[in-house]
Amino acid sequence: MGNPPINDNTQVQEQLYLGIDGGGTKCRARIISASGRMLGTGVGGPANPLHGVQQTLISIQTATEEALTDAGLPATACNRLIAGVGLAGVNLPSLFDVINQWKHPFQQMYLTTDLHIACLGAHNSADGAVIVAGTGSCGYSYVNGKSTILGAHGFPFGDIGSGAWMGLEAVKAVLLASDDLGPQTLLSELIGEHLHAKGVMIVDKMAGAKSSDYARLAIFVLDAADRNDAVALAIVKQGAAYLSAVAERLWETKPVRMSLLGGLAQRLIPWMLPAVVERLSAPLNQPEFGAVYFAQKMNGALQTA
Amino acid sequence: MGNPPINDNTQVQEQLYLGIDGGGTKCRARIISASGRMLGTGVGGPANPLHGVQQTLISIQTATEEALTDAGLPATACNRLIAGVGLAGVNLPSLFDVINQWKHPFQQMYLTTDLHIACLGAHNSADGAVIVAGTGSCGYSYVNGKSTILGAHGFPFGDIGSGAWMGLEAVKAVLLASDDLGPQTLLSELIGEHLHAKGVMIVDKMAGAKSSDYARLAIFVLDAADRNDAVALAIVKQGAAYLSAVAERLWETKPVRMSLLGGLAQRLIPWMLPAVVERLSAPLNQPEFGAVYFAQKMNGALQTA
Repeated sequence: MGNPPINDNTQVQEQLYLGIDGGGTKCRARIISASGRMLGTGVGGPANPLHGVQQTLISIQTATEEALTDAGLPATACNRLIAGVGLAGVNLPSLFDVINQWKHPFQQMYLTTDLHIACLGAHNSADGAVIVAGTGSCGYSYVNGKSTILGAHGFPFGDIGSGAWMGLEAVKAVLLASDDLGPQTLLSELIGEHLHAKGVMIVDKMAGAKSSDYARLAIFVLDAADRNDAVALAIVKQGAAYLSAVAERLWETKPVRMSLLGGLAQRLIPWMLPAVVERLSAPLNQPEFGAVYFAQKMNGALQTA
Repeated sequence: MGNPPINDNTQVQEQLYLGIDGGGTKCRARIISASGRMLGTGVGGPANPLHGVQQTLISIQTATEEALTDAGLPATACNRLIAGVGLAGVNLPSLFDVINQWKHPFQQMYLTTDLHIACLGAHNSADGAVIVAGTGSCGYSYVNGKSTILGAHGFPFGDIGSGAWMGLEAVKAVLLASDDLGPQTLLSELIGEHLHAKGVMIVDKMAGAKSSDYARLAIFVLDAADRNDAVALAIVKQGAAYLSAVAERLWETKPVRMSLLGGLAQRLIPWMLPAVVERLSAPLNQPEFGAVYFAQKMNGALQTA
C-alpha cells in the first residue's frame, strides 16, 4: 500500500506546518504535515531583520512560495500553514514586536529566535545547547525552560569568530598592510583577487557592505591560515578562542548535548580547544525542523490552554 | 578711512570665494572676498559622501546659505561664488566623479579631499603634513606636488584612533563584558548611562548606527582611560600608537611642518609618542581657509592656462 500520494485529498486536508529559518544570507522554508511527512522546501534571500525588516518579510514569502510549489500545493494553501519562524535579531524586543505585528499570510505564526529553532532542531526538540558560526556567531542553551544567549550582538560590534567578523578583520589587515602600517599578508592577494581591487581600492568595493558581503571573505582567511599566514592565523585563532570560551560558558548551564552549527563550523573545529571539541555532538536536524517543532509546541499549548 | 562696509557696492562686485570643509559630523562654509576679507560663515549637517551623497550636497547648500546670510548677501549671490570644496571620501575615484558631476549652484566649483584643504589651511597654503583625529582618522602630506594619504579608509574597517573607531571598540568591549566573556569595564556604566541602555540592550540602540553616532562615545573612552580603566586604556593606547606610527611615516615624505587636527587631537596627545608630539606645530588656519586657497589656486591656474 505504501504512502498515499501527496495530492491525495485526505492528506491535503491534514494540518500543514511551515518551518522558517531566517539568517543573514538566506531564508530556508520547509513544509511538514501533521503526520511528519516532508512535503516541500524553499529558499529565499537574506532574512535578518536587523539589516532590513522589509527584505526579511519578502524573503520569508519567497521561501514559502517556493516550498508550496515544491510540495505541489497552490499558493492559496499559504493560509493553511501554521508557521514557526526563527529569525536573527528578534531577541531585541523592538524587532520582535515589529515582526510579530506583520499582517502575515499564514493561518497562524509563532515567532522566536533563530537560535531557539536551531537548538530545537539540533537536539530533536529536546533541551540542549548550540554554538553557531556562520555569517554571524553566538551561543545558546535551552535547559529546563530557561534560555541563555551569548553573543548574537550582530555586525559590526559583535559576532567574534563569525564569517562577517573574519571578513571585517581581514579587510582591516589588508588596508593596514597597504599603508605599510601593518604586517604584509597573503590576504592582500587573496581578497584583492576576489574583489578585483588592490590596496586602498578595496575601500571602494566594501563601502556600505553588509555582513553577508564580509562573510564571503571568511573563506580566504581560513585558507590563508591553513597556509600559515601570520595575520590570518591571528584572526582565526582569536575567533576560535572566543567560540571555545562561549562553549565553556554554555556547559555551565548544564545542557545534555551541545552542537556546533553554521557554514564555518567544520573549518573552525581544528582551531578550537580540543577539550571543547571532544564534547560536541552532531546536530540531529536542521533549524527549519526546529521551527516546525516550535510551531507544533506553541499551537498545541494554545489549543490545550 | 578704514574698511568700507560689506554692502558697499564696489566691494560686493569683488570676486567672492567660498570654502567648504565637509566631514562626517558637520559641514563648515566660509565666504572670503578676493582681497581676503572674511564676509560670513555657516554650518550644515554631515557631509561625508561615503555615508550619503544626497545628504552631503544638502549639507553643503545649508552651510552656504547660512554663510551668505551671515555675510549680508542675498541667496542669489550663490552664483557669484567660486567654491573650493574639500570632502572626505573623494580620494575614491567613483565618489569624486559623482560629486564633481553635481549641477552645483556656484559660479565655479573645485573639488578635492578634506585632507588636502586641512593641510593647505594648517600651513597657510604651504607644503606640509597633517594628522586628523576626529570622527575619522588619517594622515596626509603634500610635498613638492606629491600627496601621500595614510588611512582615511573610513568606518567600520579603518580609522584607528578616530572617534568612530574608539566608540566601536568600546561597544564591542561593553558587549563582551555583558556576556562575561571579556573583562568588566567602567565603559559599561558610562556608555550605558549615555545610551539609557544596559548590556545587550545597547545593541538595540546602536543597530544601524553611523560613524558619527559611534564618535559620540569616544569621550567616554578617553574619560575612562584617564580614570585608569584597563579596557579603555588599551583602546586609547592602541589608537594613539597608530597615530604616532602615521606621523613617523609622514615625516619620511619630508614635510616642513606637521600638525595634529580634529576634535580628539588635544585628548590624544598625552598618549602619543613624546618624540612625535615634540615635532608637531600648531595649525595656522582652519580647513575652510585651505578650501579657499585651493579655489584661488585652481582658478588662477585655469585663468592663466
